[in-house]
Amino acid sequence: MRPNERALEQPREIRFTRKYTCHAEGSVLVEFGNTKVLCTASVEESVPRFLKGSGQGWVTAEYSMLPRATHTRGNREAARGKQGGRTLEIQRLIARALRAAVDLKALNDYSITLDCDVIQADGGTRTAAISGACVALADAFNWMVAEGKLKQSPLKFMIAAVSVGIVGDDAVCDLEYVEDSAAETDMNVVMTEDGKLIEVQGTAEGEPFSFDELHQLLDLAKGGIDTIIAAQKQALED
Amino acid sequence: MRPNERALEQPREIRFTRKYTCHAEGSVLVEFGNTKVLCTASVEESVPRFLKGSGQGWVTAEYSMLPRATHTRGNREAARGKQGGRTLEIQRLIARALRAAVDLKALNDYSITLDCDVIQADGGTRTAAISGACVALADAFNWMVAEGKLKQSPLKFMIAAVSVGIVGDDAVCDLEYVEDSAAETDMNVVMTEDGKLIEVQGTAEGEPFSFDELHQLLDLAKGGIDTIIAAQKQALED
Amino acid sequence: MRPNERALEQPREIRFTRKYTCHAEGSVLVEFGNTKVLCTASVEESVPRFLKGSGQGWVTAEYSMLPRATHTRGNREAARGKQGGRTLEIQRLIARALRAAVDLKALNDYSITLDCDVIQADGGTRTAAISGACVALADAFNWMVAEGKLKQSPLKFMIAAVSVGIVGDDAVCDLEYVEDSAAETDMNVVMTEDGKLIEVQGTAEGEPFSFDELHQLLDLAKGGIDTIIAAQKQALED
Amino acid sequence: MRPNERALEQPREIRFTRKYTCHAEGSVLVEFGNTKVLCTASVEESVPRFLKGSGQGWVTAEYSMLPRATHTRGNREAARGKQGGRTLEIQRLIARALRAAVDLKALNDYSITLDCDVIQADGGTRTAAISGACVALADAFNWMVAEGKLKQSPLKFMIAAVSVGIVGDDAVCDLEYVEDSAAETDMNVVMTEDGKLIEVQGTAEGEPFSFDELHQLLDLAKGGIDTIIAAQKQALED
Amino acid sequence: MRPNERALEQPREIRFTRKYTCHAEGSVLVEFGNTKVLCTASVEESVPRFLKGSGQGWVTAEYSMLPRATHTRGNREAARGKQGGRTLEIQRLIARALRAAVDLKALNDYSITLDCDVIQADGGTRTAAISGACVALADAFNWMVAEGKLKQSPLKFMIAAVSVGIVGDDAVCDLEYVEDSAAETDMNVVMTEDGKLIEVQGTAEGEPFSFDELHQLLDLAKGGIDTIIAAQKQALED
Amino acid sequence: MRPNERALEQPREIRFTRKYTCHAEGSVLVEFGNTKVLCTASVEESVPRFLKGSGQGWVTAEYSMLPRATHTRGNREAARGKQGGRTLEIQRLIARALRAAVDLKALNDYSITLDCDVIQADGGTRTAAISGACVALADAFNWMVAEGKLKQSPLKFMIAAVSVGIVGDDAVCDLEYVEDSAAETDMNVVMTEDGKLIEVQGTAEGEPFSFDELHQLLDLAKGGIDTIIAAQKQALED
Repeated sequence: MRPNERALEQPREIRFTRKYTCHAEGSVLVEFGNTKVLCTASVEESVPRFLKGSGQGWVTAEYSMLPRATHTRGNREAARGKQGGRTLEIQRLIARALRAAVDLKALNDYSITLDCDVIQADGGTRTAAISGACVALADAFNWMVAEGKLKQSPLKFMIAAVSVGIVGDDAVCDLEYVEDSAAETDMNVVMTEDGKLIEVQGTAEGEPFSFDELHQLLDLAKGGIDTIIAAQKQALED
Repeated sequence: MRPNERALEQPREIRFTRKYTCHAEGSVLVEFGNTKVLCTASVEESVPRFLKGSGQGWVTAEYSMLPRATHTRGNREAARGKQGGRTLEIQRLIARALRAAVDLKALNDYSITLDCDVIQADGGTRTAAISGACVALADAFNWMVAEGKLKQSPLKFMIAAVSVGIVGDDAVCDLEYVEDSAAETDMNVVMTEDGKLIEVQGTAEGEPFSFDELHQLLDLAKGGIDTIIAAQKQALED
Repeated sequence: MRPNERALEQPREIRFTRKYTCHAEGSVLVEFGNTKVLCTASVEESVPRFLKGSGQGWVTAEYSMLPRATHTRGNREAARGKQGGRTLEIQRLIARALRAAVDLKALNDYSITLDCDVIQADGGTRTAAISGACVALADAFNWMVAEGKLKQSPLKFMIAAVSVGIVGDDAVCDLEYVEDSAAETDMNVVMTEDGKLIEVQGTAEGEPFSFDELHQLLDLAKGGIDTIIAAQKQALED
Repeated sequence: MRPNERALEQPREIRFTRKYTCHAEGSVLVEFGNTKVLCTASVEESVPRFLKGSGQGWVTAEYSMLPRATHTRGNREAARGKQGGRTLEIQRLIARALRAAVDLKALNDYSITLDCDVIQADGGTRTAAISGACVALADAFNWMVAEGKLKQSPLKFMIAAVSVGIVGDDAVCDLEYVEDSAAETDMNVVMTEDGKLIEVQGTAEGEPFSFDELHQLLDLAKGGIDTIIAAQKQALED
Repeated sequence: MRPNERALEQPREIRFTRKYTCHAEGSVLVEFGNTKVLCTASVEESVPRFLKGSGQGWVTAEYSMLPRATHTRGNREAARGKQGGRTLEIQRLIARALRAAVDLKALNDYSITLDCDVIQADGGTRTAAISGACVALADAFNWMVAEGKLKQSPLKFMIAAVSVGIVGDDAVCDLEYVEDSAAETDMNVVMTEDGKLIEVQGTAEGEPFSFDELHQLLDLAKGGIDTIIAAQKQALED
Repeated sequence: MRPNERALEQPREIRFTRKYTCHAEGSVLVEFGNTKVLCTASVEESVPRFLKGSGQGWVTAEYSMLPRATHTRGNREAARGKQGGRTLEIQRLIARALRAAVDLKALNDYSITLDCDVIQADGGTRTAAISGACVALADAFNWMVAEGKLKQSPLKFMIAAVSVGIVGDDAVCDLEYVEDSAAETDMNVVMTEDGKLIEVQGTAEGEPFSFDELHQLLDLAKGGIDTIIAAQKQALED
């Protein structure tokens, strides 16, 4: 039995709270159960050096955990003087996933920075961050349209992400921390609202896994992502 | 007239939300109007090297602003690779102020880290942080007593902090951002619940100020801190 | 037509040169066509702090590109003062993949560091590095057995890695640089000698990809990895 | 009784040696008893980026202790790779205090850097540094006028600083090291030559202090600063 | 007797392999016996800031050891976050020596970076690096002439370097590691093809040395360098 | 004619002021004309890790220039976050030279740190630093003997250093800044009081130099060093 009597294919309770803070052009608190990530989208009227003069815009991301988002306090990366490998890996993933959802050519000379700060962690922080950042990005684009900075939103489609994994003998969707730390195989999947893949990252934490298991996990992920995208759309309508 | 029709001596609406996150031994969201700071107190069973074998405990603090807590996005210090001078100055102040409220000898071989992360900034983040951290610290000490780690709480008294300043011709209490950036003189005051001073930091941003103005500001601070301490005590009783 | 008239499913010429340098316990130059990576395995009689006293061993990895391994000179990370996100991501992948191939419990209190330094780059450096590091690791374990440090090699199975991707309308195996930079989808796959998955990392560089395309790419990867593992085994017999 | 039989309100012997080194536009060795700080003012014909085009000048400061300025050798910050929080806090204070004494608008597009390097420390290094830097700054401005770079000196008034504190039951002025480390309350005060306040920083090191004690300390500070400013003026006339 | 029955004045087997890698404008693997260094010369159409507008070109160098180039694994400087003093000292020497061989005025607005990466170390890595870098530089200049970027090569003369030292009672040429670590005096000499000195760095590792010993070592160095320069010229003709 | 009508072989006025600061076990201000370096020797009762348990002592050095020791202000290395290559090279030289003068075995488990801080620079700061550090070291050893920490001073002989160079057509001794920046060849020589060599570092800044020129420079250096050592001994007797 999973914690909280969840079914194997059932994601945790998903919630998106828009305008969570007041300064950012998009600001969303995303909750996947007890995992809570504040995702803000900040619009800047400039592009990185390698895009100067190209007429193209850019989307980037930064990720961090508050030191006590976790069971035991982690070091503050600003105090240590560098971001760890895990942090860099996750923020590269977030940025890459969101860029795949945006028509960068239409984002004429603007940059969007997505800041994903984990307030409370219980597994799946990177998938929650991607899912929340997409809502914050949609809000920021809508703001840009309303402000007359863009004619229409350059968001091509909504995207969302979920973790899936094999825990014991079961393939399960949206692992929380106790499941994650016991998983044999752990996979993060990012998909579009029409069921196409943006990113698949599967890792054998214990035993190697078979092609069959991979397919099973992907199917689970598709179901979870459909649920999350429905919640995103509901939130954007409110 | 002040923003929101506040009286000169009136602090903003003060709110302390305890147990804001679930992992820390003390976790408080403090709000001074639109300024929101998450203060967590983390208990560790060890002390810094310079206290090893002394039998004394320690209290330290770290402070950070989320990049988009402010009107325009600030650099993430973890990405820049170092904490700025302002950050270090503030976290040294928070730690020093809270240590003054604790009987460190009675905190036998434990360390408490107070993490103050600014979720949303509108002036007075350091004074909100000190005031919120004191509540989080009280909760952490109560947890330690309940867990049998300490016989009684080593908190000697509650402390709180407020900013005061001269804006135009007026001495005002608890400046918000628009006031702060226009202030001639800016002062942060930390006091105990029985009206004694822990820290006074006054700076002439524009013209130098007189002894009389200093006294006037201190009186304003005392009034504001009384209000904040009442709110802390109310929160701790809930 | 692919460069050098390669068939879609055909990896480049794969070569493993053992004992490429004289000091390391395992030292292999791996070549995937023009991509050349020097992989050394260094044995140390200690473990990281978090494993002290556990009786378990450890395998870690570091990856770097010589500044002029590429068409235009890249910055030297040692001179910049930090390793980039791409480097950290790759060396975390190499280490994770190799650890999955080792019985760490049987590697009693020893650590192995796999250094993968790219001498010349033409796409697929991370997959070449994983494939070469596995041969270097096998050599290092054999040396440890010969020296009486271990009773038997803790290598559970050989592993290898290959990149696959969609270039234009074709799914192709083992992309070289010109293909890689034109790919719509890019996937790195790590597998065991008996066809199980260790790691799958697929990314939509251009358009999102379908489940069908994913399956097609995985099949290509399996074929390529079989070829690489055959070359590894041949090299280990020489 | 205080060390060296000083009266409670009596600062140590104050000495300003101008032109202590030959290259800087202003170069002053300031001595507060055994505390010796070399203060140089360097003129540069440029301003920080945030002032470009504003027509305004800038004053900044850097502070450092030679490793063996103190009883036991301290780490060299350049070797550690970062400036500590205390250093940053002090140099921010020095710069802020001196900027308050300068008409930055009249310092048309020039920057002055005040380097305060502690040669020998015996308490009160920051207050000595501020007092010495003001003389170096006056010299640098006079040089600029003589060179025709400015029509007249933009120094609005002389400033000086002193530490005051409560040691045992006594409020004392200009604490040396043995007093400083025993003080219950420690306060640094920066004032103008006409008795107005630039900065007040008071800290309860032991017990919290009362408003009355604060007033007593401020009066002591005023007396000390009058003495220091007299010494500055005497030095500038020599 | 020396290792491998070498005569006292006899350098190790010297080999220069040109075009060792395919991307760099000059790419040479230099071998002094078991010491192997990959030297690449990279041409860039820009100069450092301090030469902007001067019409002069520049030559710089970077040096590194692969972590397992040595008997026991050394730390990777990129991972440690800074280059060590030895590394900086060596790369400054390499750059200075090569600049002495180049007519920088004739290298109109181009910069050359010489990357010297030690693949395998057995003493004398810096002298091998200088000797190999000179060949790589000659190749890069020839490439620039062939490409029409320069009218003629700005290389004024070939240079080479060798280490000499006093081991036991003998002055010997081109020390390998076991000799180097036993040497009383250690000297690195850089000379031109016509026997003039570019750099002399002699150090008493044990006892101080006499003027006579210095002269004896310089004579040995001259012989060794003649041999190396002959090998360079042979390689450049092949 | 040289500046100040110095003869070619004549060093500048050399002065050693002992007990320049009060806390260090040895504290010497050395002046070579306008070059002024504060050299302190600090005794610590511990050794670096690699010497733990060896019974041997250690001598190390750190070097720095105050930012405005020079004509134009240099960056403060502590603020930049790292020591430059020149600094590291010089402090390695100082430490190596002084270690050659000490019987480390007799310095039982003590470490001496020599801090050389350049107060004012006019050429030859590294040779002044070595010469001054030797006097500070002698003082520190004498203090250790007086305190009963050592039976006798482990200083084997006095050492001193001087720069020599070819300026125009002349070989000159102890170059000041204007000479140094015009020199064709620049050489730093460290010798013992009985005329043996500790370190020779000669560099062709312009044209390569001949063996004859090298010999001429070494003879000049010997004369200069004799003068400096006489001054050291005089100072130690005062």
